[in-house]
Amino acid sequence: MAPIYLDNNATTRVLPQVVEAMLPYFTEQFGNASSIHAFGAEVGGALRTARQSVQALIGAEFDHEIIFTSGGTESNTTAIRSALQVQPGRSEIITSAVEHPAILSLCDWLEKHEGVTVHHIPVDTMGRLDLDAYRAALSERVAVVSLMWANNETGTVFPVDGLAELAHGVGALFHTDAVQAAGKLPIDVKTTDIDMLSLSGHKFHGPKGVGALYLRKGTRFRPLLRGGHQERGRRAGTENAPAIIGMGKAAEIAMATLAEDGARMAALRDRLEQGLVQRVGHCFVTGDPRDRLPNTATVAFEFIEGEAILLKLNQAGIAASSGSACTSGSLEPSHVLRAMDIPFTAAHGAIRFSLSHESTAEEIDRVLDVMPGIIAGLRAMSPFWSGDGAAPVAFNPDYT
Amino acid sequence: MAPIYLDNNATTRVLPQVVEAMLPYFTEQFGNASSIHAFGAEVGGALRTARQSVQALIGAEFDHEIIFTSGGTESNTTAIRSALQVQPGRSEIITSAVEHPAILSLCDWLEKHEGVTVHHIPVDTMGRLDLDAYRAALSERVAVVSLMWANNETGTVFPVDGLAELAHGVGALFHTDAVQAAGKLPIDVKTTDIDMLSLSGHKFHGPKGVGALYLRKGTRFRPLLRGGHQERGRRAGTENAPAIIGMGKAAEIAMATLAEDGARMAALRDRLEQGLVQRVGHCFVTGDPRDRLPNTATVAFEFIEGEAILLKLNQAGIAASSGSACTSGSLEPSHVLRAMDIPFTAAHGAIRFSLSHESTAEEIDRVLDVMPGIIAGLRAMSPFWSGDGAAPVAFNPDYT
Ligand SMILES: Cc1ncc(COP(=O)(O)O)c(C=O)c1O
Ligand SMILES: Cc1ncc(COP(=O)(O)O)c(C=O)c1O
Repeated sequence: MAPIYLDNNATTRVLPQVVEAMLPYFTEQFGNASSIHAFGAEVGGALRTARQSVQALIGAEFDHEIIFTSGGTESNTTAIRSALQVQPGRSEIITSAVEHPAILSLCDWLEKHEGVTVHHIPVDTMGRLDLDAYRAALSERVAVVSLMWANNETGTVFPVDGLAELAHGVGALFHTDAVQAAGKLPIDVKTTDIDMLSLSGHKFHGPKGVGALYLRKGTRFRPLLRGGHQERGRRAGTENAPAIIGMGKAAEIAMATLAEDGARMAALRDRLEQGLVQRVGHCFVTGDPRDRLPNTATVAFEFIEGEAILLKLNQAGIAASSGSACTSGSLEPSHVLRAMDIPFTAAHGAIRFSLSHESTAEEIDRVLDVMPGIIAGLRAMSPFWSGDGAAPVAFNPDYT
Repeated sequence: MAPIYLDNNATTRVLPQVVEAMLPYFTEQFGNASSIHAFGAEVGGALRTARQSVQALIGAEFDHEIIFTSGGTESNTTAIRSALQVQPGRSEIITSAVEHPAILSLCDWLEKHEGVTVHHIPVDTMGRLDLDAYRAALSERVAVVSLMWANNETGTVFPVDGLAELAHGVGALFHTDAVQAAGKLPIDVKTTDIDMLSLSGHKFHGPKGVGALYLRKGTRFRPLLRGGHQERGRRAGTENAPAIIGMGKAAEIAMATLAEDGARMAALRDRLEQGLVQRVGHCFVTGDPRDRLPNTATVAFEFIEGEAILLKLNQAGIAASSGSACTSGSLEPSHVLRAMDIPFTAAHGAIRFSLSHESTAEEIDRVLDVMPGIIAGLRAMSPFWSGDGAAPVAFNPDYT
C-alpha cells in the first residue's frame, strides 16, 4: 500500500507543476535578475509574475508590498527586529504563549539581552487568545504585536483583524505569522489593519528555503540582511529565482483551489476526528471547534506516549507528527498544549494529522482502521492505563 | 551562435548533475529531515553527505563546523553579528574598503545605529591590503576582523591566513568572506587561524538561496535566526534540503575538478587579458597580477562607459558585467575600483569577464574578435577620446 502523508503542517510535497516551473531557472535562465544579458532576460518577468501571485494569495494592494525571504523564520525575525528598530522609543512586544518557536525564541533573546519586555498573552483550553489580557498589555510602550493567524499545532485561528485594530489603537505595529494560514484560508490583508505578515513557501506545496514578508505600503522598515539592492533594498542577497518562481506557482494553484479544497479538507478532517473519538475512546480533539484550519486535526490520546503512537503509525505507512516537528526529539508535551492546560496525561499522547489538498477519503479511512488497534496495544502496556477503560486521572472537563 | 556566459562571479549555471541530485527531494523525499517517517527517511543521510562535501571543499576538520544558511549575505551577517554579541566588551570591527556590500552595508548600519567603530583598511592600486594600516587598527577593542579571501570584482586574493594570525594576536575573531574563493582556489581552513568563513552555493554551480557558514569548533556563537533546532540550534528554519543537497553535489564536483580547472581557467584568462591589451589599447588589467582568482579578468577601458560596452557585448551574445551586479544600475564606478584609485576615466569603463569551468578557448577568441570593434566604435562617439589615440587624461602609472 502507498504510504500516507498526513504531516502537511510540517512541510508539503512540492507539486510537479511547481518543480516544472522552477526547472528552466536552474540551468537555462540562471542569470541574475539584475543582469541585462540573455541568460537572465526572462528572470525579471518571471519574478514579477511570482510576486503578483503571492500578492493575490494574501490580497495585498501592491505587489511591492511582498518581500521575498528565505522562509517563515527569516520573515518573522525581520518583522520583529524591524519594528523595534523603527521605534526606538518603544521597547515592549506583545505575543502569545502559543506562537511558533521562531517568534518565541527571538523574544526570549530580546528580553534577556536587548532590554525588551515581552508579554506572552495566555490562551484558554481551546487555544483562544485571552482578550482581556491582551487589552491590558497594550500601551504606548509596545513597539509591535505579533500574533499568529493560525496555530501550527491545533489549527486554532486568532481573530487577527480585530487584534490589529486594537494594536493600532496604541500606535503599535501589528505583525502576524500567517505561515500556516496561507493557502488554507482566504486572506485579504488590504481590508485589515495588519502591517506585516509572514509566509513560507513549503507550507503550501512550494519549495523550501523561500518565504515572504508582506510589508504594508508606508510601514517604516529596516532590513535584517543588508548589502545588494535586491527586493528594493529591503532584503539583500542574490534573488533565489527558481524558488521564488516556484512559490509563485504554488500560490497561484493554492488561490485557484482554495475555496473548494478548504471545504473538502474540512470534511475529511471532521470524518477523521469523529471517527477517532468514536472508535478509540479516551481521546479528544484540541483547538477551537468554531474557528480553525480546515486541514489540522490534533487529537490527544490519554495514557500513552505520542512518540510511541507515531512509530506504530509509521510502521503502518502513515506519516503524522506529535507536537511540532521542531520540538519532536524531546518528550515534553509541546508548549502549545501546555499553554492550553491540556492535562499532562493527554498532552503526552497528542498526535497531529495535517491534511493537504492531495489527501483522500481512502487515506482517512485507513487511519481510522489502524488507529484503534495501535492505541489499544499501547494502552495495554501503559502503566497509566487502568485496564478497564476508566480514566485513572481526572482530565479537563472542557474536553470530555 | 550560442551565447557566451562570462559573468560567473555574479552567478553560475547550476550543473545538470546538481539538479539531478536535488530533484527527488522536491516530490518524493520531501519530508522534514527531523521527521521519522518514510517521506523523509533518506533526507538525513543526504544532508550528512552534503555537509561532508562542503567540509571537504574548505578542508574543515569536523562536519559540524558547517552551518547551512540561505546564502553569502546571511552567512556574512550572521558571522559579524555573532562576533559582536559574544564579546560585549569589544565594539570595533576591522574590514577593508573593497569588501562586498553585504559586509560594508552591515558595518555602516552598526556604526550609525549600534555604537560600533569600523576601520576600513585601504588597498593599493593593485587591490592589495595595506598591512601597516591593518596592524595599526588592531587592538583589544576589536571584536572581529572581516576580510575577504578573494575580491569579486578584481579577483585579488588577500593573504587571509597571515591576517587571521594577526587578529588572534589581539584576541579578535577572524571572519573571511570566501564566497568567490570557494571552488576556485584550494582552501584548507583547518591549517589556518580563521574562525568563521562564508560560502554561497550559486557561485560554484550549486543552487541559489543556499550558503554556509564555517564556524570553527569551540568558537563562541549566537544565531541570527532563532526558533527550531535545525543546524544544531545555530540556524533555525526548515532545512532547505534540496538546495543543501545540491550545494553538496556542487562542492563535490568542484573539489574533484579544482586543480585541473584552475590551471585551465587561468590560461584562458591570461589569453583574454593579453589579447585585449594587445588588440584594443588604452586599457589595462586590474587587480594583483601575482595573487588573484584564476577565473576573473577585470579590464578597464579608458574614455568609455562600461554600461555601453556591456550593451554592445550583449548584442554580440556575450554576457559580462561592469562592477558587481549589485551596483550595476548606477553609473558610478564601483567602490572597489575607487578604493584602488583607478582613475575615473578608466574605472567608468571597467568590464569584468568571469570564467567558469565550462568556459572554452573558442569563447575567449570570440570575445577577442568582437571587442576591438566595440571599443573603437564607442570611443569614436566619446567626448573624452581625443581621436588620435593619445590619452587626453593622465592615468595611474602603475597600470601603464
Ligand atoms: C564576495 C561576495 N560576498 C558575498 C556575496 C553575497 O552572496 P549571496 O548573493 O549569495 O548572498 C557575493 C555575491 O554576490 C560576493 O561576491
Ligand atoms: C506557524 C509557523 N511559523 C513559522 C514557521 C517557520 O517556517 P520556516 O521553517 O519556513 O522557517 C513554521 C513552520 O515550521 C510555522 O508553522
